Amino acid sequence: MRNFIIDCDTAEDDIFSLFMLLHNKVKVHAITVVEGNVSFPVEVQNALWASEFSKRFFGEEVKVYPGMERPLVKDFKTVENVHGKGGIGDLTLSSNLKPEGKHAVDLIVELADRYPGELEFLAISPLTNLAMAYLKDRTVVEKIKKVWVMGGTINGHGNITPVAEYNVWVDPDAAKIVFNSGFDVTMVAWDLITQFTINEEWEEIKGLKTELSEMYVKFYKHYREFAMTYQKMKGNPHPDLITTAVALDERVAKRVEKFYVDVENCDCSTRGVTVIDYLGVLGREPNVNVVLDLNKKAFLEDLYSLLRR
Amino acid sequence: MRNFIIDCDTAEDDIFSLFMLLHNKVKVHAITVVEGNVSFPVEVQNALWASEFSKRFFGEEVKVYPGMERPLVKDFKTVENVHGKGGIGDLTLSSNLKPEGKHAVDLIVELADRYPGELEFLAISPLTNLAMAYLKDRTVVEKIKKVWVMGGTINGHGNITPVAEYNVWVDPDAAKIVFNSGFDVTMVAWDLITQFTINEEWEEIKGLKTELSEMYVKFYKHYREFAMTYQKMKGNPHPDLITTAVALDERVAKRVEKFYVDVENCDCSTRGVTVIDYLGVLGREPNVNVVLDLNKKAFLEDLYSLLRR
Amino acid sequence: MRNFIIDCDTAEDDIFSLFMLLHNKVKVHAITVVEGNVSFPVEVQNALWASEFSKRFFGEEVKVYPGMERPLVKDFKTVENVHGKGGIGDLTLSSNLKPEGKHAVDLIVELADRYPGELEFLAISPLTNLAMAYLKDRTVVEKIKKVWVMGGTINGHGNITPVAEYNVWVDPDAAKIVFNSGFDVTMVAWDLITQFTINEEWEEIKGLKTELSEMYVKFYKHYREFAMTYQKMKGNPHPDLITTAVALDERVAKRVEKFYVDVENCDCSTRGVTVIDYLGVLGREPNVNVVLDLNKKAFLEDLYSLLRR
Amino acid sequence: MRNFIIDCDTAEDDIFSLFMLLHNKVKVHAITVVEGNVSFPVEVQNALWASEFSKRFFGEEVKVYPGMERPLVKDFKTVENVHGKGGIGDLTLSSNLKPEGKHAVDLIVELADRYPGELEFLAISPLTNLAMAYLKDRTVVEKIKKVWVMGGTINGHGNITPVAEYNVWVDPDAAKIVFNSGFDVTMVAWDLITQFTINEEWEEIKGLKTELSEMYVKFYKHYREFAMTYQKMKGNPHPDLITTAVALDERVAKRVEKFYVDVENCDCSTRGVTVIDYLGVLGREPNVNVVLDLNKKAFLEDLYSLLRR
Repeated sequence: MRNFIIDCDTAEDDIFSLFMLLHNKVKVHAITVVEGNVSFPVEVQNALWASEFSKRFFGEEVKVYPGMERPLVKDFKTVENVHGKGGIGDLTLSSNLKPEGKHAVDLIVELADRYPGELEFLAISPLTNLAMAYLKDRTVVEKIKKVWVMGGTINGHGNITPVAEYNVWVDPDAAKIVFNSGFDVTMVAWDLITQFTINEEWEEIKGLKTELSEMYVKFYKHYREFAMTYQKMKGNPHPDLITTAVALDERVAKRVEKFYVDVENCDCSTRGVTVIDYLGVLGREPNVNVVLDLNKKAFLEDLYSLLRR
Repeated sequence: MRNFIIDCDTAEDDIFSLFMLLHNKVKVHAITVVEGNVSFPVEVQNALWASEFSKRFFGEEVKVYPGMERPLVKDFKTVENVHGKGGIGDLTLSSNLKPEGKHAVDLIVELADRYPGELEFLAISPLTNLAMAYLKDRTVVEKIKKVWVMGGTINGHGNITPVAEYNVWVDPDAAKIVFNSGFDVTMVAWDLITQFTINEEWEEIKGLKTELSEMYVKFYKHYREFAMTYQKMKGNPHPDLITTAVALDERVAKRVEKFYVDVENCDCSTRGVTVIDYLGVLGREPNVNVVLDLNKKAFLEDLYSLLRR
Repeated sequence: MRNFIIDCDTAEDDIFSLFMLLHNKVKVHAITVVEGNVSFPVEVQNALWASEFSKRFFGEEVKVYPGMERPLVKDFKTVENVHGKGGIGDLTLSSNLKPEGKHAVDLIVELADRYPGELEFLAISPLTNLAMAYLKDRTVVEKIKKVWVMGGTINGHGNITPVAEYNVWVDPDAAKIVFNSGFDVTMVAWDLITQFTINEEWEEIKGLKTELSEMYVKFYKHYREFAMTYQKMKGNPHPDLITTAVALDERVAKRVEKFYVDVENCDCSTRGVTVIDYLGVLGREPNVNVVLDLNKKAFLEDLYSLLRR
Repeated sequence: MRNFIIDCDTAEDDIFSLFMLLHNKVKVHAITVVEGNVSFPVEVQNALWASEFSKRFFGEEVKVYPGMERPLVKDFKTVENVHGKGGIGDLTLSSNLKPEGKHAVDLIVELADRYPGELEFLAISPLTNLAMAYLKDRTVVEKIKKVWVMGGTINGHGNITPVAEYNVWVDPDAAKIVFNSGFDVTMVAWDLITQFTINEEWEEIKGLKTELSEMYVKFYKHYREFAMTYQKMKGNPHPDLITTAVALDERVAKRVEKFYVDVENCDCSTRGVTVIDYLGVLGREPNVNVVLDLNKKAFLEDLYSLLRR
């Protein structure tokens, strides 16, 4: 059985990513929460709600470990305009559960020790938690089997700035550390997943009439409208869920190549740009598996399988 | 009749750009030379050769004005590996002509004064000459009708660095000045023209057996090999010549949109990146007409028309 | 009784700083070790040696907690040329003690919890450990009473670069975090202490013939020669020991003013510069107590009192 | 006879610098005007007024050549708060003269050609004009005998930012170019001249009752008040006039050493910092004669001699 940590700045797509992991019967050892989409307490609250729901629906309890509340060095901003006030459109999620007392960073080090060579880290969020774990204990590099990252761009089209994707932009220092430290990183870029949005399938999903499909429609409504109104998209994107599908189902990433990828961490207009050396002009060793094309059909099968559960 | 200055860091594609201008019977008032592809004296020499050849072949003499030999502020490097030692593969061009004594920057200001609202500036080169003209006399902004720029990227795929195109990288300060000063700029990006290389047409051109087609094969041989060997291209690209065609033939630019474009001029890994605000997240006034798609058929017609002359 | 952590990149001046703390009967809860002067294992070894010696000489055992082995984000270099191969000139110190297993960063958080409002942090080293503790638990700001920092410049005269002092240069991000987070920081600058070197007193100290004075001469010989040969000093400087004296003896800092101080953390020629807003042109709230003048007589009394013990 | 260009962002101290040159019978070939203290048209107007006054008072007409109205690359701001609305406190100066049509940059190149090895350039202003002349014609380096620069800091104490002096800050790119291009530069720093202000001498000067002394009091009143109120000075400083005196009277610079000096031109908190390598840690060839101490008595003699004329 595969062993995962899911690292979230918990909005709608993070929650469905957790669901997809559980639906696929991998062991999710923890939800670690990190600064990002919405205010940190709301992110934790959303994670607890997801955990509580998962226990009932999937029969699996996943503990929630609050981690870094801010990037290593830089200032950042949350993006309630994108995901809605509570990160799930207009909904407010609540839960009776409490977060764990142990810091996410310590938990990551601990789990890496407990499952050396087996643990996979699904980072659908800024990389501050993992970078901090690495800074405290550099041996996590060898112990963590795979790092799946939703982040960056492959064609220079960002979202938070013209050229930077939000997760990497929030903590470019953390991304730079993770990319350059020897982890086995696979990166699913923003301007890749924007080509694989849920368009006419939206109506189909509405028609499924399952508990999860109805939740899906409620949860993604705000994000869909934002994406279609302000981001020139044809439907709602799934940055986190596609990354999760890439991690779970090897059919989903249709083309992957390993390149040297660096992260620009200046305080300038290109903060957070992922510098991918496609032509090898820098002469550096490739360090990141970059997903270059997706199999939408496979992803949709994975999504529908989850929604139909 | 249209009035042009052609601004060159004279390699093979600059020379054929001059030829295309003359073939299309626009008035070319000057070749201004600027730092770039190869050593400055060689660039001047190549320009003089082109001028001499043009007089004989097109019946038009175009004077050569040496301009800036270095970027405004930054260091740069020439790229003889790309274009060959002399900028034209292994060939060395010589000429009996002499360059003009007037500085290119002064000539630009003068011609803008002489042809206000009519002069077009074809910059298939770093933008140092035009930026200097602007710095000396800001009124050139209103007097120069159009600035056609070969430079930058629209999808974040560079050549001199992973994310920067050579012309903008050489003098990002100059590009930043030109883009942000109110000129009517049209930008033809590197990672656009790489999709429109001369592939199987190469053999066709060989078969034309005209003076210019034979010169074409000789001049582009080195560049073609470099592009196909080191830049993953299917044939030889025409950054300058396509930009010239875009300026001359309105069919060639199939899709153009005006966006706000800034240039990153930091001393960092993203030096020279063109930051194109496709989604308007910066809330700035659009300042550059960005060519987003090309009509290869139209370009080929223009090219063949020239080569068959 | 005052409660201290001493944070060291353990070279000669760090060791005598520990001795001065113990001589003055403050409680030293831990030596935390951080990247800096020499290789990390050597720093730890030196700290262990100092601990073992202290147990015998001062009757106090101080445990050694290895912490951060690298800056948060940047690369750095050690300076064996300054302090000698082992950080103590040509000497190699060894010890039978072992370092603690707990990470220095966790220890700092723990001690801050245990002694809220009482703990003082003496940072005679890059600020990575404290910055990490803060990043993990922002409440340490209120719990740590005082942060005494050897670092920065007050007159723009650096050592590792023309304008930056080594400790701040090594991890400017950490220094920026610590200075801007609300800690009660007192800063003792490099180009202040260089005005208060041990000059003709060197011979006096040689004449003391005590165990510590003989150790002093052995330990500082290399550093003294380096300073006098390469740094235009009249004798050996005491960056760490003067900072320790400032913390212990209020007579030593003759003039202290609170200014807004920021740290330049760019990757540029001014990396690590302490930007002190003497004239208030930035309009920011003062955040650092900057020591502007020293009482050499008081410092010498403190030093001689230690050496004569 | 010595041949000078005086390069001004014409406020009170620029005008008296011109007077001092003329009083000392050097040939002033031109006043070149550059962006800086106040709005460009006002600077030109002030220069014309000074020229007109000089003709009458010193019998010397000096032509005024407007030059660069903005820095090479960066944005800047004028400082009417320091010098008063019109650059001379509350006064508005007017003149019947007209500025020359030739651009200052071209004039500099021309005069360098006409007086090779003899021309001295007194830059009491941002260095944009000289940098532009150099960019257009690199041979000016050998032709211009001396460049006297009021600018930078020697002890890290700035005025426009905590660490940068105004002239260098306005156009750090220009300063970087001038310092690194081989000119024979002598630099008089802001935080040097602030130690040599006109304090109690103010009353003495008032008592002189000459035309120039009365003008002095009128012209410097605003600046004096600003300096004493906002810049912790004991009197009014003479950045430009002291630099002029250094150029004219070799007694005034009491200590001068040649160091490698670079200029930080980042867009960051240290923009415009003069990085002076006192200890030679960068291993670069010294390029700037840095004035380290002044002879106030000699300067006062020069000033009084002028005022008494």
